[in-house]
Amino acid sequence: MNQDIVSTPKEMLTHWQGHRNLTRKVIEAFPEDKLFSFNIGGMRTFGEICNELLELGAPIAKGIATNEWGKYADIEGAPSSEAPKTKEEVLMIWDWSTQIINEYWATIKPGRFQETELIYDQYEGKIWWHLAYIMDNEVHHRGQGYVYLRALGIEPPFFWER
Amino acid sequence: MNQDIVSTPKEMLTHWQGHRNLTRKVIEAFPEDKLFSFNIGGMRTFGEICNELLELGAPIAKGIATNEWGKYADIEGAPSSEAPKTKEEVLMIWDWSTQIINEYWATIKPGRFQETELIYDQYEGKIWWHLAYIMDNEVHHRGQGYVYLRALGIEPPFFWER
Repeated sequence: MNQDIVSTPKEMLTHWQGHRNLTRKVIEAFPEDKLFSFNIGGMRTFGEICNELLELGAPIAKGIATNEWGKYADIEGAPSSEAPKTKEEVLMIWDWSTQIINEYWATIKPGRFQETELIYDQYEGKIWWHLAYIMDNEVHHRGQGYVYLRALGIEPPFFWER
Repeated sequence: MNQDIVSTPKEMLTHWQGHRNLTRKVIEAFPEDKLFSFNIGGMRTFGEICNELLELGAPIAKGIATNEWGKYADIEGAPSSEAPKTKEEVLMIWDWSTQIINEYWATIKPGRFQETELIYDQYEGKIWWHLAYIMDNEVHHRGQGYVYLRALGIEPPFFWER
């Protein structure tokens, strides 16, 4: 059973981009003045969370493809080295990341997802596991965003809309 | 690249049970009197969410293994056919589900995760996708649980503790 396929790299890209597209809808659903100001229980604003997610988007795809783990500002053509402070800036870097992820994905070598690697000098695991971790992290924090929207009286997008 | 392995069925079991173990810690962190009473923005209580997750635990493993998609009360040895109403009942069925998932997993046939199937007469997709969907659903709702805990002034477990 050990060499049995669960899903393919191409399927994982579609799955990840589907999640990223849903997160984009959640960002869009936030009123501009609430994205970087509203929170519950002392947690981060959804805008601050998005800045974390941007660092775990394009740079992760680059790391999987090239073994180089950095920040999005290190990637050629990055729109800005400053963390976004407005909804417009978040969405702009989000869309740029979407393209970068697709481009790097096309260059990933066969067998890569079963390689074990220490990333960011801190986290050791197989490449599929790193990818799963950052996707789970996005879903986790987006769930937080859903509660923020509901608390603001705003209907979030359907979970199955990818 | 299409036949490249991302992760194996055994790795997926460990990943899923790791998430389930973290969700268990979130359930444990709730005060008994808040699990089925506290909510934000008109959303469900975390206890009600857990009852959904219990229907998407053991029954999904059974469905993957046997092509039969039902409810946990249909599984032989199910502790109860009533939806849990207390923290103790939720945890009891949670732990029973953990064993059932392991038992069914050991019987899954090679190639199963790449099969396409209509489940619950409603959702069509590959088996890996159904599994990813219910894991994502758990992570999403658990993120909601984290906000509830923070709003109650309770520190949730670390996200990386599985």
